[in-house]
Amino acid sequence: MRKNYLLTPGPTPLPPEVCQALGKPIIHHRTPQFQAILKEATEGLKYVFQTQGDVFILTSSGTGAMEAAVVNLLSAQDAVICVESGKFGERWTELCKAYGINADVIKVEWGKAVDPKEIEKRLAANPNIKAVFTTLCETSTGVASDIEAIGKVVAKHKAVLVVDAISGLGAIDLKTDAWGVDVCVSGSQKGFMLPPGIAFISVSKKAWDLISVSKSPRYYFDLTVAKKAIQKTDTPFTPAISLVIALVEVLRMMKQDGLENIFSRHNLMARATKAAMKALGLELFAPSAASDVVTAVKVPAGIDGEKLVKTMRDAYGVTIAGGQAELKGKVFRFAHMGFIEEFDIIAGLACLEKVLKELGYAFELGAGVKAAEEVFLKK
Amino acid sequence: MRKNYLLTPGPTPLPPEVCQALGKPIIHHRTPQFQAILKEATEGLKYVFQTQGDVFILTSSGTGAMEAAVVNLLSAQDAVICVESGKFGERWTELCKAYGINADVIKVEWGKAVDPKEIEKRLAANPNIKAVFTTLCETSTGVASDIEAIGKVVAKHKAVLVVDAISGLGAIDLKTDAWGVDVCVSGSQKGFMLPPGIAFISVSKKAWDLISVSKSPRYYFDLTVAKKAIQKTDTPFTPAISLVIALVEVLRMMKQDGLENIFSRHNLMARATKAAMKALGLELFAPSAASDVVTAVKVPAGIDGEKLVKTMRDAYGVTIAGGQAELKGKVFRFAHMGFIEEFDIIAGLACLEKVLKELGYAFELGAGVKAAEEVFLKK
Repeated sequence: MRKNYLLTPGPTPLPPEVCQALGKPIIHHRTPQFQAILKEATEGLKYVFQTQGDVFILTSSGTGAMEAAVVNLLSAQDAVICVESGKFGERWTELCKAYGINADVIKVEWGKAVDPKEIEKRLAANPNIKAVFTTLCETSTGVASDIEAIGKVVAKHKAVLVVDAISGLGAIDLKTDAWGVDVCVSGSQKGFMLPPGIAFISVSKKAWDLISVSKSPRYYFDLTVAKKAIQKTDTPFTPAISLVIALVEVLRMMKQDGLENIFSRHNLMARATKAAMKALGLELFAPSAASDVVTAVKVPAGIDGEKLVKTMRDAYGVTIAGGQAELKGKVFRFAHMGFIEEFDIIAGLACLEKVLKELGYAFELGAGVKAAEEVFLKK
Repeated sequence: MRKNYLLTPGPTPLPPEVCQALGKPIIHHRTPQFQAILKEATEGLKYVFQTQGDVFILTSSGTGAMEAAVVNLLSAQDAVICVESGKFGERWTELCKAYGINADVIKVEWGKAVDPKEIEKRLAANPNIKAVFTTLCETSTGVASDIEAIGKVVAKHKAVLVVDAISGLGAIDLKTDAWGVDVCVSGSQKGFMLPPGIAFISVSKKAWDLISVSKSPRYYFDLTVAKKAIQKTDTPFTPAISLVIALVEVLRMMKQDGLENIFSRHNLMARATKAAMKALGLELFAPSAASDVVTAVKVPAGIDGEKLVKTMRDAYGVTIAGGQAELKGKVFRFAHMGFIEEFDIIAGLACLEKVLKELGYAFELGAGVKAAEEVFLKK
């Protein structure tokens, strides 16, 4: 007997309603039956994105939707700002480079959030900047950016604000319209509690103006074609039918729960997790800007970080994430996103305590779990 | 009570093993557990593709893999040949146009297959041609191309042969290596009996040589990055985990069945379907080059083709496909691909007969079903 517990920042666990929807016989996508589903999915996404603008469903990983943002908005030689505060911020720069777009890169120390004033400074220095690429929650460090403040800065300029909200949307607050986010990109396997395979992208009026003059080559990710198709409740290419059907299930759940409840649940889990780590004598990697979806924790001295993650997973079935790139072996990432509740956090913490003990780290057994329980009880 | 029967050329019905696999809890993709799955899936795909070369799994519709072929092989201003014998052949031309590639288009009358001699002629006339884009089974017309003969022609030139085998692979024969197919593209929702959402692409040595000098911008569909990742049994971006897990299930089934048995089953179903249509006094749209995966049939005079398809689907739950683009209302397409057996064909034919009667078409009730039964019995 082996039971698996998933506490990674994507994929996140699937609600049983999703598993059931995915296991149903397939239907054809060019039918009134699927059209009703596509319509409900698109409307539901607008609720979660908090937008009245367009939202499209793409059949791709989140990175495909990031590419869609770059190639639809810009042309080779255009100037943009890319905020790099981790592995996923770097992806914006790589994408721009691939399409000959000149990126003015704001390098932020891993574990810190970008200072909106730095974006302001760069925008003021170069009035030709057409877009600012940012990340809602940098999964590699657990840091959340202050998108609201960045939105206020960018709104004063002709540039559009693009946010990679693959990690975070539907779990922490992002008000696409109210905060002036022109293009918001997300994916299915995090806050949306689905398997990976579909991605979402919102487009504001200001973004459409830029799209209308962009010359980057594109076909599969062409949003102008997607817009024409959705006006007939269709997609340009065969969509990932079963994932869209399951999307409708989670959107119904999310609407019933309400965004405010979802956000406060994630905040509670994050607070409990942080309290537990502190009680275990562990240090947070990003104490000043940690997001509510994943907590990055420094591996204590003398402990093998990769072995910690591997043992939890292979010996006990609890999957958390290790560090990526420059943080490999130096942090572990304990996620609390999507279909996760307080007792999942408790279970994950108990496993963490067990393996830390086995690896010889000194602390009082139960201290982390107790600290989390206290936070949950106080709520 | 309403039971649904799916006889469309994609998506095709899901085997129960696939439904079960899709409904399982999700696992993380960067684990030994998923690596074993990715390895088995890649090996199994090589069996179905009949290749020793590379095969990659992309998270996209089939069109995404078509775009991958174009952007990885070519640069703007390159010269290529595109064979257009239907809607999907036209997609190659559109893709090339989007990336500034000069397509010499061979327009073939819808319902006919391309003459390999025409490709030979054009290749001889322009030694700069870098690629020939073709379609295994043109879903819009039901026509299959003679890829083996085209392969012999292209092999004599420096150009690579690219085949859109989205419709057909794993259902009718295509010997990637033996026939000299340099890049073969397929999708999950046809011969592979899965929901749409992942696509496959094979790459020969000759194709890699071209890829090494291609300058088209690319990121999400960059096959060089995919190659580096698969060497570590990884994917560059989060894959559609649940679809890859289900892919392993179908690949096991396909291997157990054996390609020859799969091909002969499709041939038998195609022959039965054609015999039935003939017995009903209906005319095939492409009698000379009809594929074994979908049969396009002319809508008889006086019958509303769109109403025929709609009534079968909405009144009786049997989904076949109507005509696309210039064939809208003029043909219907009865598919026999993937997880379909003789009694599915019989059921579909009975529904076709019922609705044809209701719409006032004159024929002997049962004649089509009987003709199909005779073909199945003779086998």
